[in-house]
Amino acid sequence: MDFMARAKELVSKMTIEEKIGQMRYDAPAIPRLNIPAYNWWNECLHGVARQGCATVFPQAIGMAASFNCSLMEKVATAISDEARAKYNEFKKFGSTELYQGLTYWSPNINIFRDPRWGRGHETYGEDPLLTGKMGTAFIKGLQGNGKYRKLDATIKHYAVHSGPEYERHSFDAVVSKKDLYETYLSAFKYCIDNADPSAVMGAYNRVNGEACCGSKTLLKDILYGEFGFKGYVVSDCGAIRDINAGHKITQNEAESAALAVNNGCQLNCGDAYLSLVDAYEEDLVTEETITECVEKLFEARFRLGMFDDDCEYDNIPFDVVECDKHTELNRQMARESIVLLKNNGILPLDKNKVKTIAVIGPNADDKGVLVANYHGTPSKYSTVLKGIQDGFDGKVIFSQGCHIRHTDGNWTGYPVREAIIAAKMADVVVLCMGLNPSMEGEEGDSYNGDVAGDKKDLSLTEPQIKLYNEIIALGKPTVFVNVSGSAIALCDQDERCDAVIQLFYGGAQAGNALADVLFGKYSPSGRLPVTFYRSVDDLPPFRDYSMENRTYKFFKGNPLYPFGYGLTYADISESWISENEVIVKNNGGMDTDYSVLKFKTEPHKELLDFKKIHIKVGEKIKVTF
Amino acid sequence: MDFMARAKELVSKMTIEEKIGQMRYDAPAIPRLNIPAYNWWNECLHGVARQGCATVFPQAIGMAASFNCSLMEKVATAISDEARAKYNEFKKFGSTELYQGLTYWSPNINIFRDPRWGRGHETYGEDPLLTGKMGTAFIKGLQGNGKYRKLDATIKHYAVHSGPEYERHSFDAVVSKKDLYETYLSAFKYCIDNADPSAVMGAYNRVNGEACCGSKTLLKDILYGEFGFKGYVVSDCGAIRDINAGHKITQNEAESAALAVNNGCQLNCGDAYLSLVDAYEEDLVTEETITECVEKLFEARFRLGMFDDDCEYDNIPFDVVECDKHTELNRQMARESIVLLKNNGILPLDKNKVKTIAVIGPNADDKGVLVANYHGTPSKYSTVLKGIQDGFDGKVIFSQGCHIRHTDGNWTGYPVREAIIAAKMADVVVLCMGLNPSMEGEEGDSYNGDVAGDKKDLSLTEPQIKLYNEIIALGKPTVFVNVSGSAIALCDQDERCDAVIQLFYGGAQAGNALADVLFGKYSPSGRLPVTFYRSVDDLPPFRDYSMENRTYKFFKGNPLYPFGYGLTYADISESWISENEVIVKNNGGMDTDYSVLKFKTEPHKELLDFKKIHIKVGEKIKVTF
Repeated sequence: MDFMARAKELVSKMTIEEKIGQMRYDAPAIPRLNIPAYNWWNECLHGVARQGCATVFPQAIGMAASFNCSLMEKVATAISDEARAKYNEFKKFGSTELYQGLTYWSPNINIFRDPRWGRGHETYGEDPLLTGKMGTAFIKGLQGNGKYRKLDATIKHYAVHSGPEYERHSFDAVVSKKDLYETYLSAFKYCIDNADPSAVMGAYNRVNGEACCGSKTLLKDILYGEFGFKGYVVSDCGAIRDINAGHKITQNEAESAALAVNNGCQLNCGDAYLSLVDAYEEDLVTEETITECVEKLFEARFRLGMFDDDCEYDNIPFDVVECDKHTELNRQMARESIVLLKNNGILPLDKNKVKTIAVIGPNADDKGVLVANYHGTPSKYSTVLKGIQDGFDGKVIFSQGCHIRHTDGNWTGYPVREAIIAAKMADVVVLCMGLNPSMEGEEGDSYNGDVAGDKKDLSLTEPQIKLYNEIIALGKPTVFVNVSGSAIALCDQDERCDAVIQLFYGGAQAGNALADVLFGKYSPSGRLPVTFYRSVDDLPPFRDYSMENRTYKFFKGNPLYPFGYGLTYADISESWISENEVIVKNNGGMDTDYSVLKFKTEPHKELLDFKKIHIKVGEKIKVTF
Repeated sequence: MDFMARAKELVSKMTIEEKIGQMRYDAPAIPRLNIPAYNWWNECLHGVARQGCATVFPQAIGMAASFNCSLMEKVATAISDEARAKYNEFKKFGSTELYQGLTYWSPNINIFRDPRWGRGHETYGEDPLLTGKMGTAFIKGLQGNGKYRKLDATIKHYAVHSGPEYERHSFDAVVSKKDLYETYLSAFKYCIDNADPSAVMGAYNRVNGEACCGSKTLLKDILYGEFGFKGYVVSDCGAIRDINAGHKITQNEAESAALAVNNGCQLNCGDAYLSLVDAYEEDLVTEETITECVEKLFEARFRLGMFDDDCEYDNIPFDVVECDKHTELNRQMARESIVLLKNNGILPLDKNKVKTIAVIGPNADDKGVLVANYHGTPSKYSTVLKGIQDGFDGKVIFSQGCHIRHTDGNWTGYPVREAIIAAKMADVVVLCMGLNPSMEGEEGDSYNGDVAGDKKDLSLTEPQIKLYNEIIALGKPTVFVNVSGSAIALCDQDERCDAVIQLFYGGAQAGNALADVLFGKYSPSGRLPVTFYRSVDDLPPFRDYSMENRTYKFFKGNPLYPFGYGLTYADISESWISENEVIVKNNGGMDTDYSVLKFKTEPHKELLDFKKIHIKVGEKIKVTF
């Protein structure tokens, strides 16, 4: 079954106009060739997204914190099952609309180089190896291992893309060759080498003067040349027009389209490739080049089994969507994504002593912080409040206490005083604060004043700080739960709270997962996939893409919590007996999952490998890399 | 214990500036007289509002649909218990801030004369008697029957106020004397006669040229004169400044303040009464008048027991807030607020036949439509989806299907196709559509294009109509659940759906209550408190305040569902044996609550009285009015 041969045969029957039409993401039908309309754009960053109900797993940054590649592959397999189940129904309509096809523009494997970047929570953090391994597991789970490809995974955004959001259509990221290969391209290469992703998405920005979607250096020389990539490249949405309108590299869309196509960007999200007709007529692009593009695209469609009736995924039933098995898997991933940052012994909570819990804060009962961005719709979900209500037999008092931002809502009062009353009545306070996806996100989706989706600093908002100080002043045992997709400067929390938990955006089961941790049903095992700095003042300028003084590898300061940090409820010791062998021992506390991280330290700290194990109290396990 | 005598004594110690200061809603402390700062503004339209967690009962319009005055009084008693419980804690801070006092600016007893009015859902509907009786029950529950007054209830907005929202600061409602007394003032008089409300709030608009908050006719002549009102009057927020800035009746705020005070508006929400100092110095108002105002206000504060330590409500504990008893009461009110508009026999659903239910629509899982406006925060809530999930053992498939408006959200896809897939897999479809509180509400709170919080017409939105038509075309048994605070033209639903239910904004227990009705645990007993017209074209112009051709009393057309309409699951017959006696018989079906409505028909239909009974199958009950 030679998919390319079949593609070539089919494409050979198309006119030049028909071929050009197929290079748009919203490819029209060609009835005379029995080709249905097909929309290439779909999303599944942490669950099938934007097409209704789906199991909504923790946001990517949270899944990265699990440091658990095999679990990640299971999650991605659940996602691809749901995706196929939906496709099997959608295709009965005779075409696929937006977000209904099999070609998914996930995962986002950009490096989260600066905590201010609004889209950082879509990534697997700041380390290229963690990103490469998590991306690889995710791609494998999406693409499957069958006769046909289960889904097409698309690694994005190639390359370097990491803010500022509000300048992305015109920004030129200037990077050294060392940073480019060592940091920005490393995970792309890793995924291509290890997981054979079907596609790559070009970024909006320029890199060293070349627009990513039309870059000879990035596409022709590195991606297809050095990395030996065999798949197809899709532009980010509107990125081709940006080449002339934003980057001013070309004079018009026809030139932009030609530049992109000639350098190997076969598919266009946007409508700039409508101008390929002009470009062809002006001899900016040859029919042969166009033919090769369309052949690649149809190879992919054939490989997905779209034109066959013996595809092994055609019988995945609709009721796998949000099935109990996936919900349980989701809860497991949500548990493993939780990072315990401080614990003076208050956790797990002692149900014999704790009779009343006050759950306080603007992120405690907000569905939005569960689903983050690029998300599906959970038909059931567990907020922090609901998880604690469901997981605790005692009394739970809730007070939102404040709006997360001054600007949210005018008349719906959440008085700080109610929170103080609640705290005073409780044995333990769970303070749930942080950010939400409208405060860190994509240009257009999010709004943070003049920095669009990016963050200005690493602070909590003013109303939260005010509420926090009032509650802390009461001197009650306090567990601080930070819900955010990026690093927050939790210095005061580290000092004054009894425990600090990083929840990230935890998906539909976040509350249940947190309750599992709070009440000792699960020993936390997540580790930070990013450095938690003490202040925005410790960082280089946001627009500076040099890696100097960034991430755990190069940061010269003293971080609050380093990359890889994360506590368990067990007393674990590691004894490295050789470069690749370590004895891990659980000296007490409780049974726990545990990620062993292997670093080198010269010329700077660098993650070389990691493995996650389960270790019982008193157990000793030898881990070999 | 003469509250007025104590007030007079205290006020006699104040300087003129101190007195004027106490006429602001945010009255400052007078430490030398041991008077703490007090904020008069509080809200409890359908539960303690805007001060954190509270039992959130159905929106006012829904409670009116219960036609159950004794239940209404129980609800208001629960509200006043929660209000006192909160106050008992808030006062420990040494002052009360916004939304923390005992003086509540509820209920809204304006007449819902036109379904386009955005704030109509805050009212008890279009009938003055129903409004008067519901208002009376509500006020009694709030104010209690003790040595001290439990809370101050404030009837608003005096008078005539009912849109347009976007013109309210300058609008002159022109009304005939007949309409004024018979329609617009009737419920105010009824409540004053029967429930002795502590306060009246003046409206923004003018009536026949006079600004309500400074109207000699409305305040001095009618309210204090004819109606014998003994309480105090508070301006709506900013309404005093409107007298000069919006209505152009006076030259400046000092004149506006003097006009209002001289006509009997003692308390100012806003800051216009700061100008009373000028007005006093310019001899526009006398110290005697000011003194009388402040005495009235302090009479109210003494009557609430604020300055005593033997108040019978001081020991209501905080944990009455959202206690189980109130939650159960809430579910009962939510059940009774549901109006069954059509049933071809599909309801109650037969659990032996119905194994899979598809819950479809943008209002199925939206917390916002539960709480409506002027609301507290439920710490637990049951959406339509959740209620069905919790109340049904079979399979529930959810699909939002569309955004409620085109403008809501850009990238979060809710494909119609998913809804079609869900419907096809189901035995029964529950379609949950309507409006939400951002589409009908107050000026400023809500946005409906150029009509602010008002509605342009009685239609569902375009995306909902599209979704509706796609689902209905499938021919599946369909229950249409309309969630709105006002009449929607459900003509097509009445024709093509198997059942039609009006849910209103049902409070925190709405989903459980609906499930009780769907699955036959409760026979619906609500009746429409407003006429459901067939089209906006059947209505007089919105700005025309004449009652001609409005409401069931005067409408000359053929409504879709008349005022008072509502089905049960029983076969009920009524036999009137005299003007004031009726034999009600339950001929079969199931035991049910039932409201008996007594109308006269000449010179037009008019509700004279109503009583709600419980009647078992086969039972015969004689109801006497």
